[in-house]
Amino acid sequence: MHPVDLIRKKRDGGELSEDEIRFFVQGAAQQSIPEAQLAAWLMAAFLRGLTLKEEAALTTAMRYSGEVFDHAGLGRATVDKHSTGGVGDKTSFLVAPLAAAAGIAVPMISGRALGHTGGTLDKLESIPGYRTQLSLAEARRVLEECGATMIGQTENLVPADRVLYDLRDRTGTVESPWLICASIMSKKLAAGLSGLVLDVKTGSGAFLKDPEVSRFLAALMVDTGDRSGTRTTALLTSMDQPLGRFSGNWVEIWESVELLSNLRDPRSEDLRELSLVLAGWMIYLGNKAASAEEGRSIAEAKLTDGSALDIFSRMVKAQGGDVAILDDPARFHAPKFRRDFHAVRSGYLNHVDCEKVGWAVQRLGAGRERAGEPVAAHAGLELHAKLGWRVEAGQPLCTLFTDEETRFAEPEQLLSHALTIGSEPETLPALIGEIITSQNSGEVLRNQFHESPLHP
Amino acid sequence: MHPVDLIRKKRDGGELSEDEIRFFVQGAAQQSIPEAQLAAWLMAAFLRGLTLKEEAALTTAMRYSGEVFDHAGLGRATVDKHSTGGVGDKTSFLVAPLAAAAGIAVPMISGRALGHTGGTLDKLESIPGYRTQLSLAEARRVLEECGATMIGQTENLVPADRVLYDLRDRTGTVESPWLICASIMSKKLAAGLSGLVLDVKTGSGAFLKDPEVSRFLAALMVDTGDRSGTRTTALLTSMDQPLGRFSGNWVEIWESVELLSNLRDPRSEDLRELSLVLAGWMIYLGNKAASAEEGRSIAEAKLTDGSALDIFSRMVKAQGGDVAILDDPARFHAPKFRRDFHAVRSGYLNHVDCEKVGWAVQRLGAGRERAGEPVAAHAGLELHAKLGWRVEAGQPLCTLFTDEETRFAEPEQLLSHALTIGSEPETLPALIGEIITSQNSGEVLRNQFHESPLHP
Repeated sequence: MHPVDLIRKKRDGGELSEDEIRFFVQGAAQQSIPEAQLAAWLMAAFLRGLTLKEEAALTTAMRYSGEVFDHAGLGRATVDKHSTGGVGDKTSFLVAPLAAAAGIAVPMISGRALGHTGGTLDKLESIPGYRTQLSLAEARRVLEECGATMIGQTENLVPADRVLYDLRDRTGTVESPWLICASIMSKKLAAGLSGLVLDVKTGSGAFLKDPEVSRFLAALMVDTGDRSGTRTTALLTSMDQPLGRFSGNWVEIWESVELLSNLRDPRSEDLRELSLVLAGWMIYLGNKAASAEEGRSIAEAKLTDGSALDIFSRMVKAQGGDVAILDDPARFHAPKFRRDFHAVRSGYLNHVDCEKVGWAVQRLGAGRERAGEPVAAHAGLELHAKLGWRVEAGQPLCTLFTDEETRFAEPEQLLSHALTIGSEPETLPALIGEIITSQNSGEVLRNQFHESPLHP
Repeated sequence: MHPVDLIRKKRDGGELSEDEIRFFVQGAAQQSIPEAQLAAWLMAAFLRGLTLKEEAALTTAMRYSGEVFDHAGLGRATVDKHSTGGVGDKTSFLVAPLAAAAGIAVPMISGRALGHTGGTLDKLESIPGYRTQLSLAEARRVLEECGATMIGQTENLVPADRVLYDLRDRTGTVESPWLICASIMSKKLAAGLSGLVLDVKTGSGAFLKDPEVSRFLAALMVDTGDRSGTRTTALLTSMDQPLGRFSGNWVEIWESVELLSNLRDPRSEDLRELSLVLAGWMIYLGNKAASAEEGRSIAEAKLTDGSALDIFSRMVKAQGGDVAILDDPARFHAPKFRRDFHAVRSGYLNHVDCEKVGWAVQRLGAGRERAGEPVAAHAGLELHAKLGWRVEAGQPLCTLFTDEETRFAEPEQLLSHALTIGSEPETLPALIGEIITSQNSGEVLRNQFHESPLHP
């Protein structure tokens, strides 16, 4: 098999066989195919697209390019939730313990801050002592003890994705639904899941701005999961404003612990609602409820009775974290500098450029300029108003936290273009949009294959 | 300027500026842009195509990526002919002296055998002593003395093409009319031409099998030449059978010298006709005739009166070749082994798979398996029948020449599938098809831009 033949085949719109795709993926993982040839294939796949068979073959070949997380003998359904990335998106800290409290095992493998979005690992590491780099054997023990574990990717899990993702970043081949699907699903399936709930973001803070592309990606991931024996459901949800009250690192842990402690705040209601719905789907896919609605009721009960908080606390302890700080998370919040950002006029908060808000949070120190840099635990932002709320000129719209005073300027500049106040209230996007399951994914994919200009 | 931005722009169908294209080409020539990024851009350009402005910018940036052939003070129009590659295609040895005899300067920079096609340099080097690797200063002296010079590419002429062509070969991005045009035209324009005639091959022996793609390439080259101030005309010509009587290295010099000596053979008539027409266009574009037809008449006169043979002989001598062997070229032909290939039935030679015949010639030793290998001067093939001729079972259809007896098997196998004899004569393709000039190139390009599935 010659790489150039596989490139030409994809270039001309042909369908690669499973063997051909495996050859390509192994060549990437083992670095036996030169980067120039991988790059040409990726661009051909970007512009020509993949068939559903190719997508499944690519995902499977990547999934098995290294070690996989094996849950044999666990005796529980393993279900995870994955988000395509957002601002203030801390549902993981809620849905993992909620589903675990309902009897599901949640082996969650997460990532770091990327672009304008936060990273679950960076947030977890703001808990003193919390270790995200567990071996799969260690993670298995935490999973058995607590019902949930939240760790980083191991060195040997899906090595093909590490190579291909790095290359895509350098060759302008990131924003392809086919390549995004294979990247996400190979890592999720390597975690050994019986069920998976996908939170596919749409709106001003989503990576994919075109809602039709998000919808297509959602259906593609559902199809790919189902073909691999993992019951998969995708929810299209609004990322038109940061989720909840806080965006950053420690502040997101704080807000999550408050919710798990049944402390409510109107600014956190969207986060609470979305978390309960996602957890409900996880509980349903894990066969602990007859429907997602019943799953939601179970999740709400586990929130109210404190059992989810107990699981979260035990998991943090099992992974080395200091649980004392969970008792009063607000007290632990110690940014060196705080500054309010004020409304310049009165009216209704009608539009948020959520990506700009996300960049503001990252620039305050929550994210990194280049890979490997440390992030600031207390950098972040607190919203004082949510979409659709009435605000008055001069009131604080948000408060910014940082450890370096020079970091205020750029975020303030970004925020001055990110928050739009209008005279009349406008219609707001729904928090939860379409839900894509194995029932309707085929329909979405069929239409997209015909309409996509990228797939002639 | 960041390479990844240029990749994304082309990927999304945008148009790159002149500066952006120059940045990309210089990055290739100086190897400051990594191969993976060059490859991704090439594949995006392959699938999205280029606009005419981008094509001209790419050609110009490549043309000036190294030294250029400067003809200041020569006092004559400089006109060249370029063929997209064929089998038995030896028109260069005829048109260069024919046009030079009419007062044109012909600074011809040629290449080596590629794939199933022969190489002008390999053929010239079958003349003992002939030096193809002249510096531009040496070539200039030959041009001044003889009116024509035939040399190989110098190390510093269009270095960007060397890098990009090698990369295209490894990344499945060769067969793009846009990239082919820039590769050909950058080299031709770096040779400093006031006029250029392009012989664009169509049919079973052409590199581009789709006649519409050949037609598009021809129009693209005419447009690009005209935009650069070089009067350019393209002839679409039939490569449905080897041109003339011989295919190989020395045998092609032999046939050319025979024609220049006014020795006629019915098997060489297509070669004679095409050479006169091409030379006629060169003479017209060099302003030595009022029309291509008048140019053809002048060329025929220069053939008949022996002045073209004289120029060829003087050029060979000026470049170190042994001219004594031109007096009786047949006698010099000494392959170690000869073998006839016979007709298995009687009828009409109705179809030739010219690419297979070309591969047979290369496998006899005229071509190389890998770059840098020597080629055999006397390897080749003589046709005894041309398309449409009546043949009888058992008669030799061709004679094979080689220096290694083991080399007969593969060519014989190829020929057994390459020559089709039918009971009734069939309509044959015309030797010379459409002629594309600045008058009609725009029309061809407009239609193609709308119809090409590769250019959404």
